[in-house]
Formats: sequence, C-alpha cells, structure tokens
Amino acid sequence: MSALPASAADMVALVLPSPYLLFLGDVTDPTYAKTAFGLRDWARERCIGEMSCSGGTVTTGLPRLTPAEARARGARSLVIGIANEGGRILESWIPSLLSALEAGLEIVSGMHARLEDTPALKSTAERHGRRLIDIRTPPRGIPIGTGAKRSGKRLLTVGTDCALGKKYTALALTRAFRARGIGVDFRATGQTGIMIAGTGMPMDAVVADFEAGAAELLSPDAAPDHWDVIEGQGSLFHPSFAAVSLGLLHGSQPDVIVVCHEPGRQQVIGLENYELPTLEETIELNLRLGRRTNPAIRCGGISLNTSRLTEVDARRFMREESARLQLPVADPMRNGPELERLVDSCLRDDA
Amino acid sequence: MSALPASAADMVALVLPSPYLLFLGDVTDPTYAKTAFGLRDWARERCIGEMSCSGGTVTTGLPRLTPAEARARGARSLVIGIANEGGRILESWIPSLLSALEAGLEIVSGMHARLEDTPALKSTAERHGRRLIDIRTPPRGIPIGTGAKRSGKRLLTVGTDCALGKKYTALALTRAFRARGIGVDFRATGQTGIMIAGTGMPMDAVVADFEAGAAELLSPDAAPDHWDVIEGQGSLFHPSFAAVSLGLLHGSQPDVIVVCHEPGRQQVIGLENYELPTLEETIELNLRLGRRTNPAIRCGGISLNTSRLTEVDARRFMREESARLQLPVADPMRNGPELERLVDSCLRDDA
Repeated sequence: MSALPASAADMVALVLPSPYLLFLGDVTDPTYAKTAFGLRDWARERCIGEMSCSGGTVTTGLPRLTPAEARARGARSLVIGIANEGGRILESWIPSLLSALEAGLEIVSGMHARLEDTPALKSTAERHGRRLIDIRTPPRGIPIGTGAKRSGKRLLTVGTDCALGKKYTALALTRAFRARGIGVDFRATGQTGIMIAGTGMPMDAVVADFEAGAAELLSPDAAPDHWDVIEGQGSLFHPSFAAVSLGLLHGSQPDVIVVCHEPGRQQVIGLENYELPTLEETIELNLRLGRRTNPAIRCGGISLNTSRLTEVDARRFMREESARLQLPVADPMRNGPELERLVDSCLRDDA
Repeated sequence: MSALPASAADMVALVLPSPYLLFLGDVTDPTYAKTAFGLRDWARERCIGEMSCSGGTVTTGLPRLTPAEARARGARSLVIGIANEGGRILESWIPSLLSALEAGLEIVSGMHARLEDTPALKSTAERHGRRLIDIRTPPRGIPIGTGAKRSGKRLLTVGTDCALGKKYTALALTRAFRARGIGVDFRATGQTGIMIAGTGMPMDAVVADFEAGAAELLSPDAAPDHWDVIEGQGSLFHPSFAAVSLGLLHGSQPDVIVVCHEPGRQQVIGLENYELPTLEETIELNLRLGRRTNPAIRCGGISLNTSRLTEVDARRFMREESARLQLPVADPMRNGPELERLVDSCLRDDA
C-alpha cells in the first residue's frame, strides 16, 4: 500500500468548459448516441446544439450548428456524444474535430482512445492553444483515503449489476430533492455523468490504491443539511468491477443507499455463469460493508428500471415489491406517488 | 465500466533482470532497508552482493561490491533495496546509480518517484541502452476480469490489516509446500514481493476497473495439482485500501485463504478511530465475498505474526487461539508442528 504526498497545488480538478456543442459523428443507430441523449435530457442548459459529419443520421432535436455558429452562441467545447465498440476516434471524425478546434472550441471525450494520441488533433490544439480533455484521465494528486467523517449528507446509488439505472436514479433523485428546496449536488463518477454535471471523478480510471481517496475528494465537507447524491458504479457482486464499487462505497460514506435493479435481469451483464444477487442480498451486503465508514448507513428504498414494462404492469410490480421488501419502490423515470415515497424515505432523518 | 481490447501483443509482463546488486544508499537505520533484508532472506540466489554510498552503514552481510565487480560476477541489475518517507530518489544516490548504468546494470526501483523523471538517469540509461524499471508501473494491456474458472489450485493470504505478514506468510507457505514436493509458485503483488519473485503484478498501482483482471492474469491456468500462493494486499476492512483487497480476492478465486494477524494490534495502522475486525469477522467476510468467484473457498487457518512475543508465549497463544477458533494457527516464521498442521489443512483436499 502506498502513500503519495498530495497538496492542493498538485490537485487539478476535472471541470469541463460549457456550454457544449454535441458531436454525433456518422452514427445511424441511436443506441450509440446515448451520451448525447443523456446530455440533452439532463443537462439541456449546457447544450447549445449538435453537429454530425457525413453519413450521420441520428439527431437529438437540438439546433444543428457548425462549430463557428456554436462558438458565436457561446459554446466553449465540442463534446463527443457517441460511443463505438472499441472506444476509438474514427478517421472520418477528424475534419469535424479540427474545425471545432479552429473555431475556438475545446474538445471533450470519454472514449478509451486518448485525443492527444491522434497527431493531427494534438498539433492543431497546440497551435490554437485549445485543450483536449479526456474524461477518463483522473486529476493528478488524488490522496489516499483517510476514512475521516465528513460533514453534510450523502446518498449513493448502488446496484445488483452494471448498466441498470444508477446514474439516472441519482439524477432523478437530485432533481426531486431540489424540487423540495433542498441544497443538493449530483456527484458524477462516470463519463456521461461527468459531462452532465460538468465535473466529477472518473472512478473506474483511478489507480486502485487511491479509489477510496478519490471518492472522498468527490463529495467534500458540506453544510449539515446539504445532500450529495452520488452516481454509483458497478456492483459489489460483479466479478470484474467490485473493486470500484467497494472503494466508492467506503469513500462516499453514504448515509443512505438506494438499490437499483432491472426486473427480469437474471445474469450479470456480459458474463456467463454469474447469477444476479437478490435485492435483499444487495441491500444487506452494501449496508454491511458501508457500515465500516458510516455506522448510520441505511437503505432508503429501491429504484427499478421498468422501461420494458407497461405503465400498469410497472405500477403493479412496484407495489408488490414494496410490500414484499417493506421499503419504498419507485421507477424514478416515472413520476408519481411511488417516487415521492422514495424521496420521503431517503430524507427521513431530515424531515 | 470500461472494456479495453487487449491482445497478447499488447501485454508486457513485468520480469526483472537478475541476479541483483542490492543498493543500500546512505541508510543508517535498518528499518529503512527492509526490502534489502527481504531479498537476502527470501531470494538469496538472486542476490550477488550489496553496495552503499557515502554515509551508509547498514549491511545485509552480502559481499560488498562495486557495480563493475557485480557485473563481472553476473549481476544484471541494481535493485534499490531501501525506502524513505516520501518515496524519493535522493541526489546523493545519483552517482552510484549512474555508475551502475555505466557498468552494464539496469536499475530496478519500487519507489514512488519514477526513475526516468530524474534527467541524469534517463539520459545515461538511453546512452548506454539500459532499462530503468519502475515496479509500480503495471504492465500494459491488462484485460477486464471475466470471472471464468481457471485450472490449478490457489491460496491467498488475507489480513485483518495492512503490514502484518501477508507477504512472509505466502513466502513461508510456498517454501513449506515445495518441501513436500508440491508444484508451487509464489505470486507477488507488492514491490518487495515482486523483487523477491523476479516477477508479479503491482496490484495497488493498477487502474481500479482492471483490478480483478490483473489478479486473473497473475495466477493463470495451471496443472490441476499445482498451487499458486498469492501475496495478499490490504484488508477488506481498511477504509483506504479495501478496493485493492476485493479485486485481488475476486480475481484470485482462491480455493484456500489463510488469515494473517498481529496479536495485540487493535487499530488500523495509520488511521484513528478504526478498530481492527476480529479474526472470525475477517474469515467470514473473506469467505463470503470470495465465494462469488469460487464457491468452494475455505479457510485453511490463521497466520500470526508473533515476533513481539517470546517463544513460550507465542506457542501458548497459538495453542489457545487454535482451540478457540477450531483452526490451525501458526507463525510461519517459527518452524514446528503448528506450521505443519497449517500446511496439512491448506492442502487437505489434495492429500
């Protein structure tokens, strides 16, 4: 185990220049533009417009602008709002990206490939004095975690698996807390979340020894009645990513967890032979491990991703699960009394 | 969560050039030369000799050689066998390190500071075509963990805390297994362990998303009766480092754990307000989480670091703990029937 000396001067926080122009590349399948849709839905105020390159047919419905037009309307960066299998920056995107740099925009990417590893981008950015911002590169100077108690309240979304709604649950709860007049910040831990929030910590890209320390940095001391709603990552039961989940849980020291699940999912995504844990197991293990850094941790309720169910089926299923688990159960993407009960439960101690 | 494509061609294993010349710098307190002593005790066959620079008084008892003399006797690298508070490479060491490069040795370091960040070392190494090997830099191309079952047997040392004997327990068990004619490899996960083994994986320096994958890579498929004895890191109960411990546990998929503890230690090292878990809690949580990737995991017994007790007190305490826990309890640094019973228990299924 290591101990790297860190000072405030070493620390460079990840803060993205906004508003954004969303780049949709040559994508024709909306599935690959989930980041752009997430930004439109959850950070509309940060999005000036969109642009595609030759062949692209997907649209977010935002104004279609050239980089120069976007710059004139105040945009400060071009955000790559698409993904592909290998996380690569395609040759066909380069002219658009160069024109953005020339028009005065910086480039923000959450791809695996680093922007500055493309020589044309690197040289053009240097010539114009623009930044190439790779969200997967964590800030420098992250300290080792201390486990010291911080002021303020924290909620962490956790899950039975990856990719079932932890980010959107955190965003919806942030919105619902704010609607009740509560001081609240969404704390982003993944690429899309960081673009939405304009800042955050790429937890999956942090060196393991610093994982808890990075989570501590992400939700600093705050006013006693302030809430940080923290985007969860992975799952304690995931054989590939549990290290990320445990470091985030320990470092976040949440007062409340909300457990996210997709009804019907039975196997860990992408892995054969790994069954999903039950909701009861997921609650119990997160509380048990979370108690190490916050003995007062409790489960606020369950967030279900019911997007594959009809409205009627979804509401019936949530009612049944709520009775079975004796906890509020809601789909935060469906407004209604279920969501209000979940919010009530999360805020209980502060009511 | 990310998925980086990895191919065999991307993968550069960490293999250290040996035999070594041990560098003791200007150290006057043996505490700071623990790495050198560990190498002398556990990798004597890899160590040609030692050298100090002006002011150094500590000795391992190995022959004192200049780099040229060591090279003539077959040494291939100079290993920095000392540590200091900041993990820094001191100005006073530079002449010795340069003379090693000039004499034909490569330099191996486990310090926090990177060798190539010292310009004089970098330029001299380049001029002579030597490598500067930083053990804290993980190999490239580590894949995401898959959780797929691997062949062969695995033992992982785990602990109630950091720095209480997980490395030496693994080394002693490796030696004891080998003495019984069993095919066995010590799998190193920290700086000193990697120097001792000449290869390994710096688990604390791996990016969190790849932590389990790095552990999977460390102990690959092997013959059904072959054992990998894996050096544990941190503790599942450590608020700073539990992410490392869980990724290592999941990726190692051990058949057997041996739980390491130092009698009398009550608080987590370096952290106030964190009590150590009991041995029972440590066994139970490791088995519970380890079951996720190996349902057959079991506890082989307890390894106590009794170096602060007299021989008589140590043996009495081990007897009492063994009766209380109904498990073999040994101090692997003390030969005797306790150690044999622990080894019997670990190998039980293979007997």
